[in-house]
Amino acid sequence: MTKQLLGKEVSASIRAELKTEIDTFTGRKPGLAVILVGENPASKVYVGMKKKTCADLGIESFEHILSQDATEDELVALLNGLNADDAVDGILLQLPLPSHMDEDKMLNTISPEKDVDGFHPQNVGKLLQGQRTFKSCTPYGVMEILKFYDIDPAGKHVVILGRSNIVGKPLAAMMVQKESGANATVTICHSRTQNLESITKQADILVAAIGIPEYVTASMVKEGAVVVDVGINRVDAPETEKGSKLVGDVAYDEVSSVASAITPVPGGVGPMTIAMLMKNTVTAFKEHQAPLDSI
Amino acid sequence: MTKQLLGKEVSASIRAELKTEIDTFTGRKPGLAVILVGENPASKVYVGMKKKTCADLGIESFEHILSQDATEDELVALLNGLNADDAVDGILLQLPLPSHMDEDKMLNTISPEKDVDGFHPQNVGKLLQGQRTFKSCTPYGVMEILKFYDIDPAGKHVVILGRSNIVGKPLAAMMVQKESGANATVTICHSRTQNLESITKQADILVAAIGIPEYVTASMVKEGAVVVDVGINRVDAPETEKGSKLVGDVAYDEVSSVASAITPVPGGVGPMTIAMLMKNTVTAFKEHQAPLDSI
Repeated sequence: MTKQLLGKEVSASIRAELKTEIDTFTGRKPGLAVILVGENPASKVYVGMKKKTCADLGIESFEHILSQDATEDELVALLNGLNADDAVDGILLQLPLPSHMDEDKMLNTISPEKDVDGFHPQNVGKLLQGQRTFKSCTPYGVMEILKFYDIDPAGKHVVILGRSNIVGKPLAAMMVQKESGANATVTICHSRTQNLESITKQADILVAAIGIPEYVTASMVKEGAVVVDVGINRVDAPETEKGSKLVGDVAYDEVSSVASAITPVPGGVGPMTIAMLMKNTVTAFKEHQAPLDSI
Repeated sequence: MTKQLLGKEVSASIRAELKTEIDTFTGRKPGLAVILVGENPASKVYVGMKKKTCADLGIESFEHILSQDATEDELVALLNGLNADDAVDGILLQLPLPSHMDEDKMLNTISPEKDVDGFHPQNVGKLLQGQRTFKSCTPYGVMEILKFYDIDPAGKHVVILGRSNIVGKPLAAMMVQKESGANATVTICHSRTQNLESITKQADILVAAIGIPEYVTASMVKEGAVVVDVGINRVDAPETEKGSKLVGDVAYDEVSSVASAITPVPGGVGPMTIAMLMKNTVTAFKEHQAPLDSI
């Protein structure tokens, strides 16, 4: 019987722990600034979900909306103001930005101490070097799902499909560390990989993060492997009322028959991203408070 | 016939190119500050080699020697002074530091713009994210050897033995990038890896960087693989006049009979590290000059 790895439950457990902790904070509450530039409908939905989760947990959220034609200078000025604002522990710049903006440059403007998304190069570098830092939320969520279900990657072969800066690369960086909950042998595959199936078939833990609907089929998966599906793709589904549905990067039904455990889509990795963002915000809050407490 | 990949020749070619370029610079020459803390004999040798190479190429070197019992505050003060010194384009802090110093903290004090060793987390993060930055010298040297001999890692399976911050991790970061000369499928193995031989045997390009003399034997290598040996280990050799000799992490004689190409030790990867340090220093010089030129 294939086990479902329910990020929905894992994230609920993390949010509950955070709420309990936040309730003990006297005085100011953790603060998260959320910046939306432009009119991307999906971005609006994500920002709304983040604000709602903040409200549920007792994190103060500060929303900043810039128009589609805002300049880089305007955004930099806003970010610098938030960097200096003591009520703001974490800054989230919702991606993608309008095409006239340099995303790397804008992300690099966020103070590494407030970079709760874990995208600033300094934090990514610390992550790879094994130093303490904010971990990118989605791959951090993958690590937490495995931990929750007592799946220890140590010594195992973890094959990651996809080399994006927000999932594949930071996940590889986390998995390879010499520390508890990691210690995996890590392979990163991508569009240029030769003999892909022969490599994915070796995975004890296979992580799909390539953004291609139902790309991973049963023949690519070893019997008994753990399969983590990071993909969230909307595809046509004329049979449904909406006319579309969400699927992952894994062909769930057929891969379920081979895998020992698998994350569904939706309800798998998806809900983890916001939970880890909240966790990073609380961590940032505690670090910002510490120097004050010690006065 | 197994091809020898001679870093000695590659580095000579890079140094010659750099010298030609440096000779064209009018006015101030590139400057490299080299800091040695304490009395480690091997470190003294390395610092001496770096100074000599600087002199050969026309790079000005500034040597700073602190005593074994120097404090972190003294080193930080020195680094801050060098960060602000316009004659200094690159800063090299020779490792290891005495045990009472926090290496990460000291390395993080070096301005990322002068971090020609590529160890600052901000530069490591940029490297992993595929942004332009200083690349750590030894793995950068590995990439240059492959390039020199027209060995393209694209689509190939590169297996890296070792997950150190100075070789294994940054090399994986370079190899996996979506760019010319990279694009490899990358696997990182280490002390916790299960079924190691079955993984190394898949490597089209096998890189050994674990610091164990002659660890990689013929049975671990696929027929026709390219083998890059980053190890430099001194071992007893009663038959020699010195009583010891240098060997790599690869059992050279037996692996040569299987590999299609291999780096020897010495004369392989070793000479590349200083060459790439010089290249990074010249790059830093040009970037520091640029704003002045454009006044």
